[in-house]
Amino acid sequence: MKIALAQINPTIADFNGNLKKIRDFSAKARNQGANLVVFPEQALSGYPALDLWEDPAFIRENIRAIKKLAAGSGELGIIVGFSSFNGARFGKPIHNSAAFLHQGKIKAVRHKTLLPTYDVFDEARYFERASSNSPFKFKGKTIGLSICEDAWFGEKNGKRKLYQTDPIRLQAREGADILINISASPFTRGKNIQRRKIMSSHAKKNKLPFFYCNMTGGNDEIVFDGRSCVFDRQGRLIHQAKAFSEDILVVDLEKMPPPASPNEMSEIEEIEGALVTGIQDYLSKSKISKVFVGLSGGIDSAVVAALAVKSLGKYRVTGISMPSRYSSEGSIFDAKILAQNLQIRFLSVPIANLHNAYKETLTNFIDGNPEDLWEQNIQARIRGNILMALANKEGGMVLTTGNKSELSVGYCTLYGDMSGGLAPLADVPKETVYQLAGWINREREIIPLNSIQKAPSAELKPGQKDEDDLPPYPVLDQILKLHIEQRLGLDEIAKKGFSKKLVQETLRRIELAEYKRRQAPPCIKISPKAFGVGRRMPIARGTYLGEAP
Amino acid sequence: MKIALAQINPTIADFNGNLKKIRDFSAKARNQGANLVVFPEQALSGYPALDLWEDPAFIRENIRAIKKLAAGSGELGIIVGFSSFNGARFGKPIHNSAAFLHQGKIKAVRHKTLLPTYDVFDEARYFERASSNSPFKFKGKTIGLSICEDAWFGEKNGKRKLYQTDPIRLQAREGADILINISASPFTRGKNIQRRKIMSSHAKKNKLPFFYCNMTGGNDEIVFDGRSCVFDRQGRLIHQAKAFSEDILVVDLEKMPPPASPNEMSEIEEIEGALVTGIQDYLSKSKISKVFVGLSGGIDSAVVAALAVKSLGKYRVTGISMPSRYSSEGSIFDAKILAQNLQIRFLSVPIANLHNAYKETLTNFIDGNPEDLWEQNIQARIRGNILMALANKEGGMVLTTGNKSELSVGYCTLYGDMSGGLAPLADVPKETVYQLAGWINREREIIPLNSIQKAPSAELKPGQKDEDDLPPYPVLDQILKLHIEQRLGLDEIAKKGFSKKLVQETLRRIELAEYKRRQAPPCIKISPKAFGVGRRMPIARGTYLGEAP
Repeated sequence: MKIALAQINPTIADFNGNLKKIRDFSAKARNQGANLVVFPEQALSGYPALDLWEDPAFIRENIRAIKKLAAGSGELGIIVGFSSFNGARFGKPIHNSAAFLHQGKIKAVRHKTLLPTYDVFDEARYFERASSNSPFKFKGKTIGLSICEDAWFGEKNGKRKLYQTDPIRLQAREGADILINISASPFTRGKNIQRRKIMSSHAKKNKLPFFYCNMTGGNDEIVFDGRSCVFDRQGRLIHQAKAFSEDILVVDLEKMPPPASPNEMSEIEEIEGALVTGIQDYLSKSKISKVFVGLSGGIDSAVVAALAVKSLGKYRVTGISMPSRYSSEGSIFDAKILAQNLQIRFLSVPIANLHNAYKETLTNFIDGNPEDLWEQNIQARIRGNILMALANKEGGMVLTTGNKSELSVGYCTLYGDMSGGLAPLADVPKETVYQLAGWINREREIIPLNSIQKAPSAELKPGQKDEDDLPPYPVLDQILKLHIEQRLGLDEIAKKGFSKKLVQETLRRIELAEYKRRQAPPCIKISPKAFGVGRRMPIARGTYLGEAP
Repeated sequence: MKIALAQINPTIADFNGNLKKIRDFSAKARNQGANLVVFPEQALSGYPALDLWEDPAFIRENIRAIKKLAAGSGELGIIVGFSSFNGARFGKPIHNSAAFLHQGKIKAVRHKTLLPTYDVFDEARYFERASSNSPFKFKGKTIGLSICEDAWFGEKNGKRKLYQTDPIRLQAREGADILINISASPFTRGKNIQRRKIMSSHAKKNKLPFFYCNMTGGNDEIVFDGRSCVFDRQGRLIHQAKAFSEDILVVDLEKMPPPASPNEMSEIEEIEGALVTGIQDYLSKSKISKVFVGLSGGIDSAVVAALAVKSLGKYRVTGISMPSRYSSEGSIFDAKILAQNLQIRFLSVPIANLHNAYKETLTNFIDGNPEDLWEQNIQARIRGNILMALANKEGGMVLTTGNKSELSVGYCTLYGDMSGGLAPLADVPKETVYQLAGWINREREIIPLNSIQKAPSAELKPGQKDEDDLPPYPVLDQILKLHIEQRLGLDEIAKKGFSKKLVQETLRRIELAEYKRRQAPPCIKISPKAFGVGRRMPIARGTYLGEAP
């Protein structure tokens, strides 16, 4: 038997488009002699469809689509993720399911047992868990079919396992001789190695070949990285599909190829891949064709512009320099050189007149200390307005350029540099921005070296430097990682060798900036804990930094 | 035995403040001769603490607080909601629990069985459910203690019940002779009547007195409305505490008072109460003392200013008129009269110069059609900037004035009129804004009649009226309610007698405005389905309006 893994990039709620894609990949599988083709979790509706899953008409539509797909299945077996109604009198209205289609019919439906409800996942909000999930027969083989989290039962949260059952082990005990898992498993840095280890362990433990079909593509904050893979019954990797793009793998069960080394990507290459995919798909799935990026001459905006060009091509990116009285000559020059290097359209819109006009308009109400926060903010807001005006006029979208370090401590202006439809770097710490810049420049100088080497500055008041207002980024980024990703509090972080006062100030700034992040555009998740839907914090609250008693 | 229900307003993460409040109310209960005092669900940490519940140090801190509280309990029994660690080897790390404290000790801990995971609730994200919840003894009585959702087991979602078990019924079968439920049950319009019916039915069905202690106060988007109550064993209401404020009820079990009629509030009075509480607590729990409201002369901003004055007092509210070339004389006058009526500080900041400055600055890039969207948006953004500048300078917060109808269809400007820290009307449809205005004016004309009676207009281009761009509000509001609250799609709504084309355009606009709502400030929930945390929708997606096949 030949099994194809069809790693596709569906669009949420686009049933016609997704159905067409599934049919096209089924045809490819058929042409390559496959007997069975496997599609990702929720391939029909896209993942995550969120509260659309609560709409009964939406579920009916996905069932109509699966029936259409079944009708055309013929001799090719098709496994595909969808949502099915819960037939029981209790519980959530739907299951997160996989259908097995063959000879014009839906031959089997299996449900997900383990429903992830943490970080960006809300599956207990929508789905009822499976009470059992037995293998089914196809062409003399017995197939154990599981869905995404079902394979992650063994992961620990501290000392405790989240789940008590191992649905895949149960399938093996019930006589499965092939294990298939369909997934929509989001990218985070380094996760692919962990994922491969887990999938390999299922193969090895159960002494069965294991087929893992993951989704690819970006959906708002989440990017799926593909890299579907096949393991032999010793748990050795046989094949791994491409990262961050659609792909199809066909493996002959009777003639399993020898173990293969996967194409490993470096961490920074992976991150670039996720960001480029995230930008590309956010634009294409929103049917927006061009982006506008404010170019300050600094490293963040340079990296965003370079990622945008890689995502969309140079003709769909406009860079805009908006110098003020505090912009250095060097910065203005660096922005221009960057645009030349990227070969993008470049506009220069000085903001001094607008800055003066605001001061004049507000002169009766606000006295004029140019160091004031409102004056710094107004410059950022003028720039945000200009970018939005150009995007409004031409039907494009603004990309924000702020990084995770700034967003963490609120070193950014709401309705100013936070204005835009997508925040590509909002989960990328400043230190990683430097790595990205180095990676982008690996063959030639695209980002001017000066943008990389000079001390970061918001240039909103005379002589301003980030490090006057913030701890040095290498220190800040470590504290942020310990607090946001590893969930350590004040005392635990201080114990790792940081000044208690510095940690306290930093954690307090993180708390106080929550109201800004609530209004931030979606970011592209690359870390285990990104801001946005995966991190839910109250705004109006008491101070609690995690001190010892 | 005398039982006190202490309906308090805790602040999330303020353990010291909440502990002090609990001690103060315990002293009150003791002074009134109570043997047992009951506090709401999660009274120690506040509700919802969201991802703070995932922080082990936060949980340890709440356990330290409960131990301190137990140490001082003496002869008074105290029931209070908190989070306890899950002792099992599997599952989520914590339970949503209630402690019974007496004679210096934690005498019993009981966990929540039914964990709401829908709308604004994410309890399956944080908590492990109870496997059982038996009654415990106190002074010769057997107390069945349940937590919030445990009382809502019977509610139906369509034809299906969400839950299979009735934890309260089980407690009655196990010999409880008093039923106590501690809650953090958010306000939505009309919910109190439903809630009373449900609680009454537990008393009646089990033939036991039922004590229901709800939380009060606002926490970001959620307002708890209090109205704790007591039912006799016939299910008759004996006592109901105040709405939207802290209160204590003491009832003698042996001398139950006769049935009482609750103080019923009209729907509009309730809504006003929720909004006022929401504004008040958002400010006080964020430690912000003043607000700024842009006054357009229209009804929305007038209602927001009046609510702000009711919440904070007239000295903490500034109204700002920002007339443009398109502002009518009438609007400017109405804004001024409103400020006089409310006796608030009033500033006038004309925006014509800034409008011209933007046009000049952008003249090389954008040709000048004054009807263009960018020009309308820039006026709104100038106003947003001015409000934010004043708030930045004085350390205050901007309240946005947009209503739910506008926000639904995206008839609002991101970084313009959507700029602010809280959106009091973002869950209030335009038709309800009119009712609120009438209610505010019930004794004397506070909101100028002209603001109420004139045709709504954004006044961003010559002669503009809302009804040129939108369906009439009575029609729009019905469509929005059917779609957003009742989850009906295109065909189902059209069948109710609306033009299919109109419904299609409206639903499409709702879809397309999702990116704006993602960046909106928190709104105050008054409906079964508010925008914000309770409604989670993808942005980049295909079009799906709920058509018939």
